[in-house]
Amino acid sequence: MTKTLNIAMIGGGFMGRAHAMAYATMPMCYWPAPAFAHRKVLVDVSDERAADGAARFGFDEASTDWRDAVTRKDIHVVDIVTPNDSHAEIAIAALEAGKHVICEKPLARSGAEAKTMYEAATKAGTVNMVAFNYRRTPAVAQAKKYIEDGRIGQVRNFRGTYLQDWSADPSGPLSWRFQKEVAGSGAVGDIGTHVVDFARYLVGEIVAVNSMVHTYIPERPLQADALDKLGASDKSGGGPTGKVDVDDEMIALLRFANGAVGSIEATRNAYGRNNFLTFEVHGSEGSIAFNYERMDELQVMFADDPADARGFRTVYTGPAHSNGDALWPIPALGIGYAETKIIECHDFFAAIANGTKASPDFEDGWRVSAIADGILESGETQRWVPTVP
Amino acid sequence: MTKTLNIAMIGGGFMGRAHAMAYATMPMCYWPAPAFAHRKVLVDVSDERAADGAARFGFDEASTDWRDAVTRKDIHVVDIVTPNDSHAEIAIAALEAGKHVICEKPLARSGAEAKTMYEAATKAGTVNMVAFNYRRTPAVAQAKKYIEDGRIGQVRNFRGTYLQDWSADPSGPLSWRFQKEVAGSGAVGDIGTHVVDFARYLVGEIVAVNSMVHTYIPERPLQADALDKLGASDKSGGGPTGKVDVDDEMIALLRFANGAVGSIEATRNAYGRNNFLTFEVHGSEGSIAFNYERMDELQVMFADDPADARGFRTVYTGPAHSNGDALWPIPALGIGYAETKIIECHDFFAAIANGTKASPDFEDGWRVSAIADGILESGETQRWVPTVP
Amino acid sequence: MTKTLNIAMIGGGFMGRAHAMAYATMPMCYWPAPAFAHRKVLVDVSDERAADGAARFGFDEASTDWRDAVTRKDIHVVDIVTPNDSHAEIAIAALEAGKHVICEKPLARSGAEAKTMYEAATKAGTVNMVAFNYRRTPAVAQAKKYIEDGRIGQVRNFRGTYLQDWSADPSGPLSWRFQKEVAGSGAVGDIGTHVVDFARYLVGEIVAVNSMVHTYIPERPLQADALDKLGASDKSGGGPTGKVDVDDEMIALLRFANGAVGSIEATRNAYGRNNFLTFEVHGSEGSIAFNYERMDELQVMFADDPADARGFRTVYTGPAHSNGDALWPIPALGIGYAETKIIECHDFFAAIANGTKASPDFEDGWRVSAIADGILESGETQRWVPTVP
Amino acid sequence: MTKTLNIAMIGGGFMGRAHAMAYATMPMCYWPAPAFAHRKVLVDVSDERAADGAARFGFDEASTDWRDAVTRKDIHVVDIVTPNDSHAEIAIAALEAGKHVICEKPLARSGAEAKTMYEAATKAGTVNMVAFNYRRTPAVAQAKKYIEDGRIGQVRNFRGTYLQDWSADPSGPLSWRFQKEVAGSGAVGDIGTHVVDFARYLVGEIVAVNSMVHTYIPERPLQADALDKLGASDKSGGGPTGKVDVDDEMIALLRFANGAVGSIEATRNAYGRNNFLTFEVHGSEGSIAFNYERMDELQVMFADDPADARGFRTVYTGPAHSNGDALWPIPALGIGYAETKIIECHDFFAAIANGTKASPDFEDGWRVSAIADGILESGETQRWVPTVP
Repeated sequence: MTKTLNIAMIGGGFMGRAHAMAYATMPMCYWPAPAFAHRKVLVDVSDERAADGAARFGFDEASTDWRDAVTRKDIHVVDIVTPNDSHAEIAIAALEAGKHVICEKPLARSGAEAKTMYEAATKAGTVNMVAFNYRRTPAVAQAKKYIEDGRIGQVRNFRGTYLQDWSADPSGPLSWRFQKEVAGSGAVGDIGTHVVDFARYLVGEIVAVNSMVHTYIPERPLQADALDKLGASDKSGGGPTGKVDVDDEMIALLRFANGAVGSIEATRNAYGRNNFLTFEVHGSEGSIAFNYERMDELQVMFADDPADARGFRTVYTGPAHSNGDALWPIPALGIGYAETKIIECHDFFAAIANGTKASPDFEDGWRVSAIADGILESGETQRWVPTVP
Repeated sequence: MTKTLNIAMIGGGFMGRAHAMAYATMPMCYWPAPAFAHRKVLVDVSDERAADGAARFGFDEASTDWRDAVTRKDIHVVDIVTPNDSHAEIAIAALEAGKHVICEKPLARSGAEAKTMYEAATKAGTVNMVAFNYRRTPAVAQAKKYIEDGRIGQVRNFRGTYLQDWSADPSGPLSWRFQKEVAGSGAVGDIGTHVVDFARYLVGEIVAVNSMVHTYIPERPLQADALDKLGASDKSGGGPTGKVDVDDEMIALLRFANGAVGSIEATRNAYGRNNFLTFEVHGSEGSIAFNYERMDELQVMFADDPADARGFRTVYTGPAHSNGDALWPIPALGIGYAETKIIECHDFFAAIANGTKASPDFEDGWRVSAIADGILESGETQRWVPTVP
Repeated sequence: MTKTLNIAMIGGGFMGRAHAMAYATMPMCYWPAPAFAHRKVLVDVSDERAADGAARFGFDEASTDWRDAVTRKDIHVVDIVTPNDSHAEIAIAALEAGKHVICEKPLARSGAEAKTMYEAATKAGTVNMVAFNYRRTPAVAQAKKYIEDGRIGQVRNFRGTYLQDWSADPSGPLSWRFQKEVAGSGAVGDIGTHVVDFARYLVGEIVAVNSMVHTYIPERPLQADALDKLGASDKSGGGPTGKVDVDDEMIALLRFANGAVGSIEATRNAYGRNNFLTFEVHGSEGSIAFNYERMDELQVMFADDPADARGFRTVYTGPAHSNGDALWPIPALGIGYAETKIIECHDFFAAIANGTKASPDFEDGWRVSAIADGILESGETQRWVPTVP
Repeated sequence: MTKTLNIAMIGGGFMGRAHAMAYATMPMCYWPAPAFAHRKVLVDVSDERAADGAARFGFDEASTDWRDAVTRKDIHVVDIVTPNDSHAEIAIAALEAGKHVICEKPLARSGAEAKTMYEAATKAGTVNMVAFNYRRTPAVAQAKKYIEDGRIGQVRNFRGTYLQDWSADPSGPLSWRFQKEVAGSGAVGDIGTHVVDFARYLVGEIVAVNSMVHTYIPERPLQADALDKLGASDKSGGGPTGKVDVDDEMIALLRFANGAVGSIEATRNAYGRNNFLTFEVHGSEGSIAFNYERMDELQVMFADDPADARGFRTVYTGPAHSNGDALWPIPALGIGYAETKIIECHDFFAAIANGTKASPDFEDGWRVSAIADGILESGETQRWVPTVP
């Protein structure tokens, strides 16, 4: 009989919404589902917000006491969708209480902090996952499949970007994402880690980085509350400002363990780019390109196509591709962010149900954070920095 | 206090899934929600399928008796996601029982049949909606707004297409969508009506059509059950075949009441086009173009831009656009099919909560079906056919 | 030994420039060339313009007497790049003088007028060509090849558009292109005929049309001279206006002799579309799409590609495609309008050198004009009009 | 009176063709022309090839003696379209003879070699130009204009790529482009320098680089002759092979004098990329993106557009843009490689006619070569290398 997993979700912002939507709908897509979610308790920073979140996202209970929530006997899964500075403390407590844990990315503010989480996870032996959801995009999973099947030969080069523009306007507020104490870093940790996850997923381990890291907008208006509204934030400006102590942009060269090379660029200040999470992979027998802004599409070119019919194919993912049975019955009906979280939820629950490891897990999360550290360090030292801990 | 609406959903296929996902998640997006859905009873053709659907889609009860379901005292909303031949009977029964009704498109197999539904709806006075969800795409709603705001001046021309390829392979099975008795028509009703809905929504009433209607694949393999799997259907072929008595393709010229002209093309046999639902509108001061395959994007050109910086703008919809507060906090995170249904659910529930009319309603559904009839008739007579009943 | 052909070019506007560029450079691309052009005499409406044109375009002599020029003993080829109202008179005189004739499109102001040219050409027995240069685009030629090779199976549907916006602004002047007496028609003849040429080239003969034809801008400012500057014309407006007596837009349904169907749209008033000459062809085994605005690219989809790697291929034409040896040594170096005229010149000269027929010839030009007549007639009668004379 | 410049062209390959086409047609576009070209003498390595080239490209005379050609009294302009190893010797001889010199890129095999040319040019005082023709693309010139006009604010970031795939197949022959002695370097000099030229043109001087440089295909089949056929080369393979001693790929980080940062990637081994010469520039008030594969188009985004109509504009260059009067009368008629050379020729001749400096000149060519040296050096040392000599 299908298991029901009781969920304690810590945090109730936009990401909490995304997760709650997945809990509510995953079994509708995957049937029979590996497990059902029961939304048991939602924890937020105030009674009011917790109550509001619980009502909105369909949790039975509201709480402001995450320690209690993550140690309750009736909780099976702890879902951490808080700002980065609380990931480690919550996750470790949950793991020590024997819970399965899914934690938003980046896993922690630094590799060292992430390592404590990885170690706790290893000790706990429960299922753990870091929520790099973008790799769940069917087009990205299909790229992985082409590569594994050898369709583009040996991978030689990876170029990834993650460009947004929601923070390009200096009148955007000083949310926690611009505060090192809370976020750990700026574009590097917030979005650069998604590209690093793509790079590791598609090509393999990154062994060294060489980077430039910059902060273009050094001050931003203070905001009344701690909320992070991203592109929906108030930009009316005025009032006192505070210091931005994280990076706005990074560009990095990469070396992979298997000899491939590459580069990454990440910034939230690239006007005109909204969620321009892209990669291009060149292999000895073909190439693959992807742009999340057109997430239903994958571009693939096979070198063995006839000379007069060679070119990138625009493949719309659907029933013939990754998770095709669970999603929509024809390509281009429109897969969205919600679906990446539905697939993520499925894979996490399947690992729990099957007693297997989830992927990417806290080890991956730690390694990605260590690479992020390397990027930041190289930005300081202006030298190549090895990134395998 | 927010009302809770008890739902009886008739049908449990892919479209039932889409609706169930919306019921489960709409309030997570729109908060406070206009109303909550309680998934009360799901009706399907067999005990087994009904039970399976109820479990999967989170309904309290399963039933095979739609008449009972739609007349139950505790039901507020009847949701019809069955094949076209049962729309009228179910909807009229539900309306006569005083229920609010949302019905999948096309509203009926013919304008005459749709008119009986419209008349029943008028008599009932409850909220009624026909589920042309694509107009809920934020980019399409933004197109409407540009036009209403006069940003492209007077609309002169509309060109719409809806091209798919899931039925291009003759070995695809003879599902109900290829049977006139069940579907009413082929590409005309199934997908052409979505383009007609766009045309009416963006430009205005269509007063005459002139068309070509063709059936390219006259026979298809019989399939064991009645299920319709669209692009996921079995194409192993072989076995006995049956007659396709609906259209595969239509191309039509349009005349609008306001003097604009246009054309529509719809087919499910256009290899390489997956869900190529497009429109292009030319006005006296600018133009708008949209392709649902890239549904986060709207193309808009303003003629008063400076000569050296004129061109279509690729606008990614987000917080600044239609339903922006309810969806994702930055553009291009990925709106999908699910969101069109979430918005649709919201708008339907808001009409119920506010005691207003929904749009598009059964009158729209009837008028669209009458236009579809006109297209089919013109395909026979090879003449212009007036389409205002 | 390679022949040298002496050219009399009648007309010296932008199109004359395009032809002169081809005469000067064709042999540099095709080597050995089928023939060399000697730019002998350029004829224009005034001594000043003729002299200026001759100097600019590298002709030995200038003249205002086209009758003399086209009957000179030393002239082998007459090239007609004048407004449409003089095509017939000049071409027939040249043909009667035994010259090879290349004439800009549309061949004449009407099918009847074009037929007199075709008959003169038949009688003359010299090489004749109508300058539908766009079909020379390597991507278009490759589309033809895919179709002929059966790569997309049986062609079922053709959709073509030719959308420009240079005349969308009502303050654009009343050049000859807006005067029926000179141009014969508006968008139908000027640009619609290019799409008709594509349709006939790729699919086959068009046997009937059904159209809408409109004039949106009924008056335009008179301009001092007869020059036609298209998008570079003065739009400062003001001053007296004159009547536009040609069409601004047409939309037409098509029936082909081989059973295929299709549609065409042509307008010079579609804001944001510059030279949006497109076609999409659906066949029983695949599809092809082309947009001249990205003329180096052809989109092709083969239905027999594996299910997980199906999609339109973006093929950049180069050495592996039509005229590949004569053009640039890698794809995407940038083929332009000039190259379409170079290829056209080559094919015309090759026909002369080899004593074969050119294609498209005056018969094609006549048939296209007859189809244009049918479109105009249907716009009046609102009925299907047969288009095979 | 318009001057006529007698040309000695050294080399007769594809690039010689491109230049000859420009000489023959530039005045047809620019009228009155700054000067006319008289194609006097073409020099190639054998009598046969020289004679053939002279006939093909319209030169009066053929020669195998470049020293004689570049010192002839009647020669005004020396045009060097030979492989890289002869640029310096020929150019310096021509400069010492007082000729104006245009030389293909890269200017030389190294910065040191290029400097000798720059010094000779300085001493000569004649007009000199290095043929980075891609910056002549109207879309690129328009990008420059937007930046100079402050339309995107302060430039912060530049990302450039030049990806081709003509050498990705290991069976492609060992042409001179793979031999360090002749070419100087591989992708770095051949194509990377075009991106460096873009970076300097659009953003400013590059002061330091940090790179990775790789050779993926270490051996290639020897070819019978010295010809370089790029994508049209024979790939039948077999036979003895020789060593490739130049780079296949480079990726570099950049620092600009004005504080901007950036990156470059260049390779001729990126399957599916034909002439993927791109840049993206982010500024404090907007962004610009360009891809030469769609060279008629420029993407530009202005941050001050209204929130609901923000996005990259796809601007097709035409009469309203750089060199608009000289090119085609509407956008998207198709500008190609030929036009970049026509504009280049015009600008070079205009400098001669007006007694001004050309741009980019040999100083630019030298600085670009010094940056290329820095990239190669950094690839060896794995450190940041300053690039201002």
